Amino acid sequence: MRHLLTLEDIDRASLIRLLDRAEGFRTTGAARDLLAGRTVLTLFFEPSTRTRTSFVLAAKRLGADTLNFDLSHSSTSKGESLLDTLHTLEAMRLDALVVRHDENGMPAWLAAHANTGVAVINAGDGTHAHPTQGLLDALTILQRRPDLERLRVVICGDIRHSRVARSDAQALHALGVQDIRLCAPRAMQPDALDEFPGCSAVEGFDTALAGADVVIMLRIQKERMAETQFPDAAQYHAHYGLDARRLALAGPDCQVLHPGPINRGIEIAPEVADGPQSRILDQVANGVAVRMAVLAELLAPPP
Amino acid sequence: MRHLLTLEDIDRASLIRLLDRAEGFRTTGAARDLLAGRTVLTLFFEPSTRTRTSFVLAAKRLGADTLNFDLSHSSTSKGESLLDTLHTLEAMRLDALVVRHDENGMPAWLAAHANTGVAVINAGDGTHAHPTQGLLDALTILQRRPDLERLRVVICGDIRHSRVARSDAQALHALGVQDIRLCAPRAMQPDALDEFPGCSAVEGFDTALAGADVVIMLRIQKERMAETQFPDAAQYHAHYGLDARRLALAGPDCQVLHPGPINRGIEIAPEVADGPQSRILDQVANGVAVRMAVLAELLAPPP
Amino acid sequence: MRHLLTLEDIDRASLIRLLDRAEGFRTTGAARDLLAGRTVLTLFFEPSTRTRTSFVLAAKRLGADTLNFDLSHSSTSKGESLLDTLHTLEAMRLDALVVRHDENGMPAWLAAHANTGVAVINAGDGTHAHPTQGLLDALTILQRRPDLERLRVVICGDIRHSRVARSDAQALHALGVQDIRLCAPRAMQPDALDEFPGCSAVEGFDTALAGADVVIMLRIQKERMAETQFPDAAQYHAHYGLDARRLALAGPDCQVLHPGPINRGIEIAPEVADGPQSRILDQVANGVAVRMAVLAELLAPPP
Repeated sequence: MRHLLTLEDIDRASLIRLLDRAEGFRTTGAARDLLAGRTVLTLFFEPSTRTRTSFVLAAKRLGADTLNFDLSHSSTSKGESLLDTLHTLEAMRLDALVVRHDENGMPAWLAAHANTGVAVINAGDGTHAHPTQGLLDALTILQRRPDLERLRVVICGDIRHSRVARSDAQALHALGVQDIRLCAPRAMQPDALDEFPGCSAVEGFDTALAGADVVIMLRIQKERMAETQFPDAAQYHAHYGLDARRLALAGPDCQVLHPGPINRGIEIAPEVADGPQSRILDQVANGVAVRMAVLAELLAPPP
Repeated sequence: MRHLLTLEDIDRASLIRLLDRAEGFRTTGAARDLLAGRTVLTLFFEPSTRTRTSFVLAAKRLGADTLNFDLSHSSTSKGESLLDTLHTLEAMRLDALVVRHDENGMPAWLAAHANTGVAVINAGDGTHAHPTQGLLDALTILQRRPDLERLRVVICGDIRHSRVARSDAQALHALGVQDIRLCAPRAMQPDALDEFPGCSAVEGFDTALAGADVVIMLRIQKERMAETQFPDAAQYHAHYGLDARRLALAGPDCQVLHPGPINRGIEIAPEVADGPQSRILDQVANGVAVRMAVLAELLAPPP
Repeated sequence: MRHLLTLEDIDRASLIRLLDRAEGFRTTGAARDLLAGRTVLTLFFEPSTRTRTSFVLAAKRLGADTLNFDLSHSSTSKGESLLDTLHTLEAMRLDALVVRHDENGMPAWLAAHANTGVAVINAGDGTHAHPTQGLLDALTILQRRPDLERLRVVICGDIRHSRVARSDAQALHALGVQDIRLCAPRAMQPDALDEFPGCSAVEGFDTALAGADVVIMLRIQKERMAETQFPDAAQYHAHYGLDARRLALAGPDCQVLHPGPINRGIEIAPEVADGPQSRILDQVANGVAVRMAVLAELLAPPP
């Protein structure tokens, strides 16, 4: 592995190795010699303090130097091409570039043009992929349920525009999950299921939840809610919000995941977000561990 | 001590221990093993580069990792509740949260809701408290005058709205200072003296200065000056500015403190700010040492 | 050397020592014990992510703590004088201040007023000086051509307003280069050559290029192009752009330098910027090494 751009074609063995390594870091907390002297730069074209902070903490806990490239002040706003910025950063001997961009494929494009040993890590691009989120969600589920082949997983919300849904589905499929149900209001259903391997579309959230072991709620962009048949928060919540009544339709001990930040009372009710089945804060903790594993895998591969 | 939120109820022994530790750090400069592997995050809802820089330097000199949480880009601007932000940060395993907020009590509210081992340090909240400023002012005074019981201290300026005045008064009172005089234009006098233990209100700055050993000048917010009976800078300075003539009314070697940044020619004349009795830059130096002591006390308490 | 403000009066021996040290750091990559425990603060009044990043990487690779002073949030925007900010930062025990300012002489002014052991490094001030750029350009040229006395160097573009041109000319002159040709559209020619020791003005870019061993292209500010007789990009490029045809007029193996970020198709054609004679990315790499050498020289002088 030279870059981490998507989970689309990742094989099961690589996934398991990454998740094992992440679980190790979650337990030990830090390994400050591993990336001592290496440099990790975050390059976020779309703001996200949470994800950036998670990557920066991961890099620091492996001993790497970290830098944020502040795009509001950068030469790209003065008209320098992104490619020139890439080559400039490479010449400064960076080891990894953590990229978030609102356009699909931009991290892959940077990786294709990287001409030295720099590793590009996709921290979310458009609606395309968010591979570290896919990994951390898989790790979170696995911690409670290693019997992945038997799991019934529901992903609910704006599937169409969700890079989280794509990366989650790809990770879980690669790990052997057989039953992944996608549930969305009409305007948020994907055109096709090519990017959602092993998934089926299920109409109606109550139906989808039957016997579920895991439900992954997606964050709704309030701007996009207007395009659905349920354009206000109360209507949306009534049809696609996860509350205690609905959660009772799922299997006992059904795990509830959400990539955050949550919209309380819209896609998820507070009683569920803060309830005993919520894994939301575990996801955050696992996020740091998974990012440590990815950085370690790319910059300090095991012999 | 689990958090540092106010000096209101702090006991003399804890204060002395913190100040002793600060004085030690001031002398030694650094102790990079003490917080190695710990993470300190600054969360400033009200900008202050000076105070933030002081805390970040303090944390680095104890070996901690530091992170600034950039609120302009954060999920709180996307509608995430502050509580969710707190729990997210906790899940990433932060050790301390340095919080500045323009609302009274917000750091205490965060501390009350913190459900893991994170320490909350108040870096200034509204008009309520600025405990590290109180500590650094006490340390600065003590360095020259350990005979605190005999000191005559004047605090002058916008007492009513000043978190610095409150924390200074509470620290000095707890340390045994008997004579603390509060002096302010009418609109800037506090409603009551409950939050100013052991203090008396004195009319007229000249009167207040008689025989003083310490005078703490407060920064005036230019917006607020309009509410006083001395609404322009020259009039304000004539009545409540500290110049050389006025300083001569105080005792010989009277120390002059100001939390900075100073408004030259308004609350303080340049000849005093830059003169031999000014302790303003000592306050800055002591500020780093005091913040090291607070971080050490909360995260690495002595056995 | 206590500060690095300009290359105007630097002697050959100091230059050679700095460049030797930089070449050493370029080879070894890091020397993390050298500035362990020291603090380097960047203070940029004019944004430049590239230069700031280069300095921060240099400082980190020497083991120093680094801090960016965010001026948008700082007290200078609340009316604190720059001098008070300087003294405040000094009191926090900074070791070096890396300053960029749009006014000529501001770093020198700060250095003149620095009253403790802080070193001021000019990271570019107005049209006056950009000494680390001068050093890195000299190092880049030297790596291929140590026979400096015999070199023919062209500097082309907005000479009048260029701090890069001034610092380059001063560095190369001090190192013994005999033939430095300045070439510019009329509105961009300097009033006099006082600041360009050993340089001659040459009309016409084709003429200037004859037999050149090095050509340094300057970045054109698009706002300023309007003042020339070639106010659009195509006309400017036709007369003062470096393309393959023009580069063929220079000597074989003529090195092409540009401080970046480049305006492709304006002052430089892509085929040249990306071609085999381009040293642009070497300049970036050398930039980090030179800044390490400067920090080391000022903060950890050899015995």
